[in-house]
Amino acid sequence: MASEQRIRGILAPVITPFKADLSPDPERLITHCKWLLSQNCGLAVFGTNSEANSLSVNEKKVLLDRLTAAGIDPSRMMPGTGSCSLSDSVELTRHAVTSGCAGVLMLPPFYYKNVSEDGLYRYFAEVVERVGDARLKIYLYHIPPVAVVGITAGLVERLLKNYPSAIAGMKDSSGDWSNTKMMLDNFAEQGFDVFTGNETFLLANMQNGGAGCISATANVNPAAIDRLYREWQHSDATTQQQNLNSVRQTVGQAMMIAALKSVVAHYAEDSEWMTVRPPLTELDQDQVNKIVYDLEQLGFSMPDLPVPGH
Amino acid sequence: MASEQRIRGILAPVITPFKADLSPDPERLITHCKWLLSQNCGLAVFGTNSEANSLSVNEKKVLLDRLTAAGIDPSRMMPGTGSCSLSDSVELTRHAVTSGCAGVLMLPPFYYKNVSEDGLYRYFAEVVERVGDARLKIYLYHIPPVAVVGITAGLVERLLKNYPSAIAGMKDSSGDWSNTKMMLDNFAEQGFDVFTGNETFLLANMQNGGAGCISATANVNPAAIDRLYREWQHSDATTQQQNLNSVRQTVGQAMMIAALKSVVAHYAEDSEWMTVRPPLTELDQDQVNKIVYDLEQLGFSMPDLPVPGH
Repeated sequence: MASEQRIRGILAPVITPFKADLSPDPERLITHCKWLLSQNCGLAVFGTNSEANSLSVNEKKVLLDRLTAAGIDPSRMMPGTGSCSLSDSVELTRHAVTSGCAGVLMLPPFYYKNVSEDGLYRYFAEVVERVGDARLKIYLYHIPPVAVVGITAGLVERLLKNYPSAIAGMKDSSGDWSNTKMMLDNFAEQGFDVFTGNETFLLANMQNGGAGCISATANVNPAAIDRLYREWQHSDATTQQQNLNSVRQTVGQAMMIAALKSVVAHYAEDSEWMTVRPPLTELDQDQVNKIVYDLEQLGFSMPDLPVPGH
Repeated sequence: MASEQRIRGILAPVITPFKADLSPDPERLITHCKWLLSQNCGLAVFGTNSEANSLSVNEKKVLLDRLTAAGIDPSRMMPGTGSCSLSDSVELTRHAVTSGCAGVLMLPPFYYKNVSEDGLYRYFAEVVERVGDARLKIYLYHIPPVAVVGITAGLVERLLKNYPSAIAGMKDSSGDWSNTKMMLDNFAEQGFDVFTGNETFLLANMQNGGAGCISATANVNPAAIDRLYREWQHSDATTQQQNLNSVRQTVGQAMMIAALKSVVAHYAEDSEWMTVRPPLTELDQDQVNKIVYDLEQLGFSMPDLPVPGH
């Protein structure tokens, strides 16, 4: 895949709907993915905000199969495939590549702490070698507030040098713009695509050669985020950025994953969307009402969202 | 299982040997487990020091099957079965219970951080309900330096109240004796078995009603640790404790898992034992030589360890 054909722009770490028995709900996931695509938003299924780390490898493989069987274009997908275990990461990555996915978003192995850069290099190198497929495009996932184990510039440099085709970019969810900027300055010119972990830094990222953003809030506000991605050189870009930030702050006043699901449940008139898997917990109705009220004050809506029975 | 028949004493989080291709090596694992049992040491296979979080659920199920097929008594086993994913934890826990294991050592789901006590309660409750087997004995695994997510007294209290048969005890690897003491004071009288996460606190634990310890170092020094467990009321107990601490400090001068494997490799004259899975890395020969030299200064040995070809 030539660099210019790579997946870029806005992607949502797609929230995963669960049935009352806590099993994943493929039908609701397909519906939500189709809506996101209609808003020009790519699909980073199985991300942190997808509760992907609460799913088994097999549950993820089955969901991915259901999505592609439903006609969802894998070239718009960047599934999360990293886990603590080398075997699990290889299995799910291979499945994503053979399914034709544009790339994979890969956490470092995150159980063991204080591991060396050399150990992390060996881990990613083993994944590349074992998957052994020229189509593989890895986006390294740096999210130290959650994974604790991070992706350093030294690691990126060494991986890029030895696997220039397989190492395609990164998602920086450090929340630290100076880290994103450093990665851009060091690697963007080599065709390394840097996505910010949320839209707060989208304008700054585009001004500095970034590739877009992969943001939780894109689950509910995809069109507006995509608009700034396309119009970052317009005169109103700063205003657009401020409006995006307001929506994000409003949704993020409660635990983000539960809040996103509550917002979708409200606008889709479908309370089953509220369900989260333990160890997460649902919001209470007062929290939901407050978020919805605050969003309405901002003029927020979810255009074209399918509402069952309407 | 009546309380007095529960597994107690010294257990090793059994180190997992790997072949050159990084696949688990069942034969070497069986040999090491048999040696540990011969030293009166129980088998906490699939613990942190087993690199269990670098293995898939299926790899662990296959290893457990190989161990029981080799005649290793499951009533001496407490496999680690906790993972980030509810589905994975249920699957491996069910397999351990139906295999007849004495109990399971269960990490909390450790990817998502800052989760609520209520969310963790729901997670463990779901595991108990879904496994649905009266033989289930869960030992909660508190290891905040690695898992970050911990086990609080409030969580223990609520679980014990609602699942008094299934919640059998805990392993406290906080390294904070005041936390262990608090758990003992609150719950030991209810038959909640508290194991310390290493032998440094073994004497203190036994003096306060604890059940034993589950320690990395038991992989190489099981007999001496077991002796203090049995002789904690003897007049030389403090001296025994000091001697155990010296061995632990010596092995722990380098990364513990790689060091344990190096010590076994040295005394078993079997260099394949050195291999670790990424993201861990092997020690270099200078580090190994230093550890072995320091151990010899302490008069350390591994009695009865099988040496291939001897």
